[in-house]
Amino acid sequence: MSMYIGVDLGGTNTAVGIVEENGKLIYSNSMPTRKEREPEEIIKDIENLILGVIDETKINKEEIESIGIGIPGIADYGTGSVIHCLNLNWSKIPLKKPLEKALGIPVFIDNDATLAGLAEFEAGAMKDVKNGVFITLGTGVGGGIIIDGKIHKGFNGIGSEIGHMLVDKNYYDCSCGRNGCLETFSSATALIKYTKKLMEEEDIDTIINEKIDGDLNNLNGKIIFHAAIRGDEIANKAVDRLVRYLAIGIINITSVIDPEVFVLGGGLSKAGFFLLDKVRTEVLKNKYFKTLPVGNIVLAELGNEAGIIGAAMLGKQHKKVNLFG
Amino acid sequence: MSMYIGVDLGGTNTAVGIVEENGKLIYSNSMPTRKEREPEEIIKDIENLILGVIDETKINKEEIESIGIGIPGIADYGTGSVIHCLNLNWSKIPLKKPLEKALGIPVFIDNDATLAGLAEFEAGAMKDVKNGVFITLGTGVGGGIIIDGKIHKGFNGIGSEIGHMLVDKNYYDCSCGRNGCLETFSSATALIKYTKKLMEEEDIDTIINEKIDGDLNNLNGKIIFHAAIRGDEIANKAVDRLVRYLAIGIINITSVIDPEVFVLGGGLSKAGFFLLDKVRTEVLKNKYFKTLPVGNIVLAELGNEAGIIGAAMLGKQHKKVNLFG
Repeated sequence: MSMYIGVDLGGTNTAVGIVEENGKLIYSNSMPTRKEREPEEIIKDIENLILGVIDETKINKEEIESIGIGIPGIADYGTGSVIHCLNLNWSKIPLKKPLEKALGIPVFIDNDATLAGLAEFEAGAMKDVKNGVFITLGTGVGGGIIIDGKIHKGFNGIGSEIGHMLVDKNYYDCSCGRNGCLETFSSATALIKYTKKLMEEEDIDTIINEKIDGDLNNLNGKIIFHAAIRGDEIANKAVDRLVRYLAIGIINITSVIDPEVFVLGGGLSKAGFFLLDKVRTEVLKNKYFKTLPVGNIVLAELGNEAGIIGAAMLGKQHKKVNLFG
Repeated sequence: MSMYIGVDLGGTNTAVGIVEENGKLIYSNSMPTRKEREPEEIIKDIENLILGVIDETKINKEEIESIGIGIPGIADYGTGSVIHCLNLNWSKIPLKKPLEKALGIPVFIDNDATLAGLAEFEAGAMKDVKNGVFITLGTGVGGGIIIDGKIHKGFNGIGSEIGHMLVDKNYYDCSCGRNGCLETFSSATALIKYTKKLMEEEDIDTIINEKIDGDLNNLNGKIIFHAAIRGDEIANKAVDRLVRYLAIGIINITSVIDPEVFVLGGGLSKAGFFLLDKVRTEVLKNKYFKTLPVGNIVLAELGNEAGIIGAAMLGKQHKKVNLFG
């Protein structure tokens, strides 16, 4: 049976798993990335983690079709190098070549949000559709776009960067240097920043204060959503702003590719139906053709495993497509 | 040889032409639409215009593969009905069925901007690419999206409506009922409206006054662009605003699908390189990854014939695809 290896290379942890053709994760292992080290050392760790997983599962190396690696940044698919990776502080680091040389198995790399989307397509919330957009709401806002059953990254490989869609003016600039990017409104980072702003500027009691021991540095997305669910005014103001712009982002994506489904993933999606209901309501209010339907909006199904599964499934994609179009 | 008939149904004129497999228009004819009449009468005119064109070119009816019709509105591809067409004041009008019954040739319908994009793909500025976005700058802002050589309209048929992408807040609402749609910034209508506003509010001399005989109702896109080219301050302010938001639209589309090429068409694109240079410059300023390339931006090549050619080529598309994804 064909097996695929997926590597989820993150700023904190690196996870490796073995995945079946159908997207089922059968075994995984992980270790701290310790990103302060040289890229060569981290790549050597990945190699050893892969060898360890093969060894522990006693899978025949010949059964492994390919290795896919998800990186929290921009990949060059052609050369298999990491172009930019702010999170790891990597720039122009070859990843495919050293691992292929060491392991003798084809290696592919791609952006982690794209791969989480691919995982949802292969084995999660987009399993039954051919066109879908995965939106990850975490430190930033990332996207994974599937068109006609294939990852769509665009001609220059900079598509599905939906966090950098301009949606309005904002009170602070994006890390990309521009003003108004979706991720400055709808990421966990944006939610925390705006909640702090409200707590500092508005004279409104909030239960958030109890949860952070009076230290705004303890604020996180979970605390804000919990307070919002309990009816807290400040928390709801902040969540509603996030949702308002996320809905604009969803409608803007619709105005381009109109997918069958939008899947909400990433840390904030753990707010579940509380978030989902708000997003659905706001999207319906924002439609440009009032009488025509817009894509369904659902929650991601795979959780933390999505990174490994999507990375593993990259090899399957490469069998069917030119990823550049 | 296979021939295709294209119908460009407009609010003012209706044009019908015969097009070869390669997108070459070999004969066309047109008549006033006289849209104040009943849809049935207009459809009867289309039928007669088609029969006339077949007769005049002495082409064997059996050689005609299909008829495509471009409408200035939203089409239901499945039933071949017009869902909405503000310009003609049509709603839920069957178009495919009566014409197929009368002529015995398969009929397909689609939005005119989409079809102008298809024409550029088959025989114009997108001839050599597989992924491109056609942007028409006219009364509104329309789009035609080609992905992997196929028209992409999306699951609910409301994709490529890029004029309804929200890009900022604006001082007036869009006809769709929302505020901030691209077409309220970058259409000819928006350009004229904003120029009027500047002429009324700003105390700046402008050569536009000479051209409109002191009557703001005479203002049009051509006059504004001519004045801008001659260095007029008011005209340049208005054009620069249009360009600033068009560039945001182009980068927003890039953040989703990152096409190989953007093609500027429609009435305002007649401003040619003056417009093109400004758009290219502004897009480069707006990139979210400063070091990575963004799709090339070019002018449309086909002009007024694009409507007929694109409509005709719709039959070729239907041979290869499910238009819903």
